Amino acid sequence: MSERKQFRDLAAPAEAHDAIASLDLDPGTESLPLDAAAGRVLTERVDATLDVPGFDRSALDGYALHARETFGATETDPATFDVVGIVEAGERPTVDLDPGEAVEIATGAVMPPDADAMVAVERTDRIGSEGAADDETSADGGGAASDAGGERVAVRTSVTPGENVMPAGADIAAGERALGPGTRLTAREIGLLAALGVEEVPVRAKPRVGIVSTGDELVRVGEDLDSEAGQIYDVNSNATAAAVREAGGEPVVYPHAGDDYDELERVLREAAAECDLVCSSGSTSASAVDVIYEVIEEQGDLLLHGVAIKPGKPMLVGQLEGSAYVGLPGYPVSALSIFRTFVASAIREAAGVPEPATATVRGRMAVEERAEEGRHRLVPVGLVENGAGETLVYPVDKGSGATTSLVEADGIVEMPAEVAYLDAGEAVTVDLFSPDVRPPTLLGVGEDDPLLSRLLDRIDRPRYLSVGSRAARRWLRDGVPDVVAVTGDTDELDADTTEIGGWTRGWGLVVPPDNPDDVAGLADLVDRDLAFVNRPTASGLRTSLGNALADLADERDADRRDLVDAIDGFDFTLEAHESPARRVVAGGADVGLGLRATAEKLDLGFVPIGEETVRVLAASDRMEKSGVAALDSVLGDLDALCADLPGFRDHRNR
Amino acid sequence: MSERKQFRDLAAPAEAHDAIASLDLDPGTESLPLDAAAGRVLTERVDATLDVPGFDRSALDGYALHARETFGATETDPATFDVVGIVEAGERPTVDLDPGEAVEIATGAVMPPDADAMVAVERTDRIGSEGAADDETSADGGGAASDAGGERVAVRTSVTPGENVMPAGADIAAGERALGPGTRLTAREIGLLAALGVEEVPVRAKPRVGIVSTGDELVRVGEDLDSEAGQIYDVNSNATAAAVREAGGEPVVYPHAGDDYDELERVLREAAAECDLVCSSGSTSASAVDVIYEVIEEQGDLLLHGVAIKPGKPMLVGQLEGSAYVGLPGYPVSALSIFRTFVASAIREAAGVPEPATATVRGRMAVEERAEEGRHRLVPVGLVENGAGETLVYPVDKGSGATTSLVEADGIVEMPAEVAYLDAGEAVTVDLFSPDVRPPTLLGVGEDDPLLSRLLDRIDRPRYLSVGSRAARRWLRDGVPDVVAVTGDTDELDADTTEIGGWTRGWGLVVPPDNPDDVAGLADLVDRDLAFVNRPTASGLRTSLGNALADLADERDADRRDLVDAIDGFDFTLEAHESPARRVVAGGADVGLGLRATAEKLDLGFVPIGEETVRVLAASDRMEKSGVAALDSVLGDLDALCADLPGFRDHRNR
Repeated sequence: MSERKQFRDLAAPAEAHDAIASLDLDPGTESLPLDAAAGRVLTERVDATLDVPGFDRSALDGYALHARETFGATETDPATFDVVGIVEAGERPTVDLDPGEAVEIATGAVMPPDADAMVAVERTDRIGSEGAADDETSADGGGAASDAGGERVAVRTSVTPGENVMPAGADIAAGERALGPGTRLTAREIGLLAALGVEEVPVRAKPRVGIVSTGDELVRVGEDLDSEAGQIYDVNSNATAAAVREAGGEPVVYPHAGDDYDELERVLREAAAECDLVCSSGSTSASAVDVIYEVIEEQGDLLLHGVAIKPGKPMLVGQLEGSAYVGLPGYPVSALSIFRTFVASAIREAAGVPEPATATVRGRMAVEERAEEGRHRLVPVGLVENGAGETLVYPVDKGSGATTSLVEADGIVEMPAEVAYLDAGEAVTVDLFSPDVRPPTLLGVGEDDPLLSRLLDRIDRPRYLSVGSRAARRWLRDGVPDVVAVTGDTDELDADTTEIGGWTRGWGLVVPPDNPDDVAGLADLVDRDLAFVNRPTASGLRTSLGNALADLADERDADRRDLVDAIDGFDFTLEAHESPARRVVAGGADVGLGLRATAEKLDLGFVPIGEETVRVLAASDRMEKSGVAALDSVLGDLDALCADLPGFRDHRNR
Repeated sequence: MSERKQFRDLAAPAEAHDAIASLDLDPGTESLPLDAAAGRVLTERVDATLDVPGFDRSALDGYALHARETFGATETDPATFDVVGIVEAGERPTVDLDPGEAVEIATGAVMPPDADAMVAVERTDRIGSEGAADDETSADGGGAASDAGGERVAVRTSVTPGENVMPAGADIAAGERALGPGTRLTAREIGLLAALGVEEVPVRAKPRVGIVSTGDELVRVGEDLDSEAGQIYDVNSNATAAAVREAGGEPVVYPHAGDDYDELERVLREAAAECDLVCSSGSTSASAVDVIYEVIEEQGDLLLHGVAIKPGKPMLVGQLEGSAYVGLPGYPVSALSIFRTFVASAIREAAGVPEPATATVRGRMAVEERAEEGRHRLVPVGLVENGAGETLVYPVDKGSGATTSLVEADGIVEMPAEVAYLDAGEAVTVDLFSPDVRPPTLLGVGEDDPLLSRLLDRIDRPRYLSVGSRAARRWLRDGVPDVVAVTGDTDELDADTTEIGGWTRGWGLVVPPDNPDDVAGLADLVDRDLAFVNRPTASGLRTSLGNALADLADERDADRRDLVDAIDGFDFTLEAHESPARRVVAGGADVGLGLRATAEKLDLGFVPIGEETVRVLAASDRMEKSGVAALDSVLGDLDALCADLPGFRDHRNR
């Protein structure tokens, strides 16, 4: 590993597009039964092979007759006919019409051979042959055909030949072009093909995309994970498979191949033989990338190794066994970004399916984004609608290794190397990670808090980023979030906000069950040899702890810093409010900073120290947004939500 | 049948919406493995149950060490360390770090317990213990771990504790809210769930929609059709099933039930017991509608019978066996229009899936559309983009029985009863029949012609309506189509057009093989007792025939009308250019009007009479449209296309 293969001649992004476009992903044609063909694209023209309708068809309920015999009939001077039979839909007419005769006929039924027009039942009156006007004759009809003889009908209008009759082939005639090649089959085309009696249609096959994951550290979902040995779950196989489906392809996930050359070669050859395209969903480990590079270079045809783009530099493009090959980078957001930018469109084109209009959105940058080292960048971004309904776009930068960026970013903005910065307010196009991605109804940032999680569960599609109180204030100043949930003083906030709710939460020291070390308070942390786990400086709890330590220092007339230095693990911080408590459960610490609610949830002991208030503030110009209104509404229910969260209460109920 | 059940109290469309909204379509929850869950909606919040990463993770390739030992190291004054081992991704670190020691570490690998930071390989130089600078050391790495002892590394930078290390849980920590209820699972959410090791997720089930077709005249695709007995293929079962899928439901098509009460009751009860919603895809026959109405009224709960809307009056809404029930009208376009307007949104809501933004488009009416009898209408419309890229909306009215309206209309415009007309130029919203429907790249109208069909096959997604030359001129005047294909004089066209191509086609009398009646020309039709089949007056061939008959009348010094009257079947016209010839094949006529190309295609005899020219004219302001440009381009290839169409030639090659 020590000296890695270098990406000495990085290709320009345009070259990567060209290289992929040069590959043959054509999945060919397959014949599908009609009920499986929806969403597919015809490869050949389909002509009608029969007339629709297949017969001269009555367009209404009424009477079939000779048009010329109605000549001169009016409302006041009807023409009368002997009713000599009845034809229901789906019946072969058996009567012959002589002059002065009519046949009762149902909508959709076959016109008797001699009749050349029909009169709607609404323009007629039935006259019983026994003289009784039978206005209430039963409707349970067809069997009575032979009984109709002897009755008469008065026709109160004249009709022309062909009137109310749809001639055979009038809808579509045998030999006519019904659907052309390239037609996408939606419900309506399926309907037309059914009308034509088409059982199977030739359609573009779905491009088969083989997904090969590599890297010794990866474990497939469903298998046991050994974290201490550095194992992680294989994210890219699942995410890429879903993305392939969204692009109109058929994913085939192959067994995990590790970093072994022979094993990788075997799996890649198998995938290449069975698929139109193979994507290796790369490991983050360098050795795995090296091995797969060697396999393609030695066994196939390597077109491109490394692209001048961030993220995505280690991208590979080539061919193996006549199949196209693309090597995606290892980090999930990088892999999905490269897939979205370079691969999805190639799959769509091979599938014959255009990119949906919803795959991109336009928006304006909420904050400035500067270039990095003049490199072509795919910047992961989130979307939020402002009060005016405009889409704001903000960069999401958690480091490319963060899996949560997958759901915190909605897509990417391409930033070419020659662009120095994207200005706040600048219009940009966002390539969404999936066409079904939509902006959240609510964007909140701030404290990680269990009550907040419950509030969010009651809102349709909110997004909440636990950036802590300090960062939340900065986000608010930049005009990005709809709401913030922060501790501490909110009077000096540099934004026009409206407080829509708040609560106090009891915090303290989380200890093992029954408090085996008899921890009584902060002084024990300072004075005794206890292993402590802290929260990061951005969190509200850390600030409260700092204040409590300052009080203790005042009490002892000591320097706060000396107290801090005396605490074993004060600088050992964990993300997420439950993490220190969980570390205590795992035996990794004696005392953790946390909430009473967390201690009770995890059946741990708890030493109370204080209470702090979390306030929820909405940007005043976003109060009308549905998500903000929904949060405002569920905050009205705060008492109920606090009830089973020990140590929580509505801060207005002091 | 004679006295039908009347729809005496038609419900307003809003009542129909309310009735359907009052039904319970909730499909409940199901648990799906991750690879089957894409596109679905979470019913419960998913919290992380493990830390991601599960260990302190190296963010880069390089060396893990004690940060404080790098203090003061610079490019010119590096700090040196003994390399005491190597940790690859997916390996458990086994080395302990003493002062002055570093461990080689790969991206994604577990940090050794004592190390608190790492240095990127780019900021180091490896120094062989034997003194050799090993700049080219092989990359085939991991196994060399134990050999690393004895080597040294120069570190050219200082790092702080935690630098280039992603601590356990930094991405997402156990206990954190990962995804909320209501979240649509796209590729990225699937990725996050995989990272968390989630094998199965609770998602909203797809609403099961039972489809019951009724009507004695309907035959399922794949079965034999007896046209003479008035049988037609069942269009609605297939189209509704596809539309249900497009709306996020799971269609279940039940066996065809005919018009029998007991059979219908049995099938409807079976469907109701197994499904969340049952749609009867009605027959066009009145008796079938009556029977299904009775079954629901007597066996279930009928909420609504008949809606004041066109089309769709016979719509039924009710319940059966605790399942929702909607009866769709019989004609395919009516059924799909009612499904789109009333049912699709209910299925989407039950599925928890929002209507895609592509399900509607805005456009401007191309022509005026007047109200009919003050009724609420669902007007089928087609879409075409004009030269400025605006979407024009034109009504498609082929009569509600026409199946081809399915593909000639793109969606519907709702026209409430109180609206007297939609003005030309008025902005309207079109509810597309499917979210995947897009305007054609080219809208052409005019002659039905085999060469034109071939031209269209070479263009991506054109639409062509065979309305005949006469109607085409009217369409062109209204500014609707991009191109027209017409016979006859084109000098007087009331629009600014550009001729982009044209051809002559040989026409005459199509007769059985070897011309058994020895037909020699038009005179035989007039003078002998031959059964003839004509084309409609709108067609170019009919005009040419009329002109030829006028010439014959002149020749004989006779009245043209007398000649026409002497032809048996002159008024017997068939749609589509091949239809008369096919009637000859079927033995239904002795002579048909048609093209030489058709006669040769069907192995029939042909008596030539003349040639006529079809000209293709494009609206001059649409020349830039991709479809027009494509047609213009393929017209350049006319000679090749004419080659195997007997009687056709490029009209510029006279």
